[in-house]
Amino acid sequence: MEKHSSKILEEAVEAFASLPGVGRKSALRLALHCIYQSDEKLGRFTNAVKRLSTDLRFCKKCHHISDSEVCSICLDPGRDKKLLCLVESVRDVLAIEDTGHFRGSYHVLGGIISPIDGVGPEDLHIDSLVKRCKEEAVEEVIMAISPTIDGETTIYYVSRCLAEAGLKKVSILARGVAFGGELEYTDEMTLGRSIRARIPYEIAE
Amino acid sequence: MEKHSSKILEEAVEAFASLPGVGRKSALRLALHCIYQSDEKLGRFTNAVKRLSTDLRFCKKCHHISDSEVCSICLDPGRDKKLLCLVESVRDVLAIEDTGHFRGSYHVLGGIISPIDGVGPEDLHIDSLVKRCKEEAVEEVIMAISPTIDGETTIYYVSRCLAEAGLKKVSILARGVAFGGELEYTDEMTLGRSIRARIPYEIAE
Repeated sequence: MEKHSSKILEEAVEAFASLPGVGRKSALRLALHCIYQSDEKLGRFTNAVKRLSTDLRFCKKCHHISDSEVCSICLDPGRDKKLLCLVESVRDVLAIEDTGHFRGSYHVLGGIISPIDGVGPEDLHIDSLVKRCKEEAVEEVIMAISPTIDGETTIYYVSRCLAEAGLKKVSILARGVAFGGELEYTDEMTLGRSIRARIPYEIAE
Repeated sequence: MEKHSSKILEEAVEAFASLPGVGRKSALRLALHCIYQSDEKLGRFTNAVKRLSTDLRFCKKCHHISDSEVCSICLDPGRDKKLLCLVESVRDVLAIEDTGHFRGSYHVLGGIISPIDGVGPEDLHIDSLVKRCKEEAVEEVIMAISPTIDGETTIYYVSRCLAEAGLKKVSILARGVAFGGELEYTDEMTLGRSIRARIPYEIAE
């Protein structure tokens, strides 16, 4: 696979192989596919990809991706501005939006506190969150942060900052057994906690 | 997954999802990866891909991909020009080159005769093959064509053209049980033929 008798092909294979989850075999397959596309079609493809770095911006309020200075979620008058959902990444915003169960606004932290990876509070959008909570009279922040050790540390740290700033209500995502999961395969900690944190069952009439 | 609150992201996801074997979930993952790349790095990626349609050419002798008018295999003085390997596609040239077992030259047909797909002999590079065999005094053409019904039709048709043009020797790839395959899972036709076409076993001393 080392010599394709074409440097142009070789460079395109390298380019595709630099994408996450794409090996050299798949990269070659993608490059060979592109060979047979028209200039126009491949131009549309590369332009769309290039705009991700040249034109896409981050919302100055919530740090979510945006086509303009402020993102469409922050601009939407139908969204609750008093209820913020704090997430680690853009991907989490997209995942929560997909559920269709949240009508508040977001704040993207840009990561979580992780001493091992050298990420401290100053590397995250915590200051802008605190500022926003004060200025916009936010009433509740939902911490939609992964339930890992680093996640718990982050939740603790951010909650303290928010409490100092006078925010009354902080919540975390409900924790328990996953919908559709089998009890047999649920880890002990989740299972144990979900027994202690059991909820009353209401019989629908 | 329908609304990402960003048209730029949405278009990039569409672009990646247009590649073979890339679904919308993977496309989103690739697009999100690209967001965090520098302008320069993403520019290198898109340039490398774009050149596949703008700069990559097909060798005017053998129709393999090439960076110049004639490909590096055809230009290589160390390759046997009297021995041609006839293949369906560029991908087959790459696969045979990977084996390191062929030191002749190639001729890319650009497909095989397939009445169902509406591909006739006139759609393939058969004329240029015949012309080349005459002009370059080719001595043998190896038909490295898939052993399917359409493949057999193509081999038959091309062989007749070559015979009419005066070529003496045409060969096909050896057929039999695959190396590393288990007899139990080999199809009956392959197994039956490989018994009839058995070869003497030589004991190495």
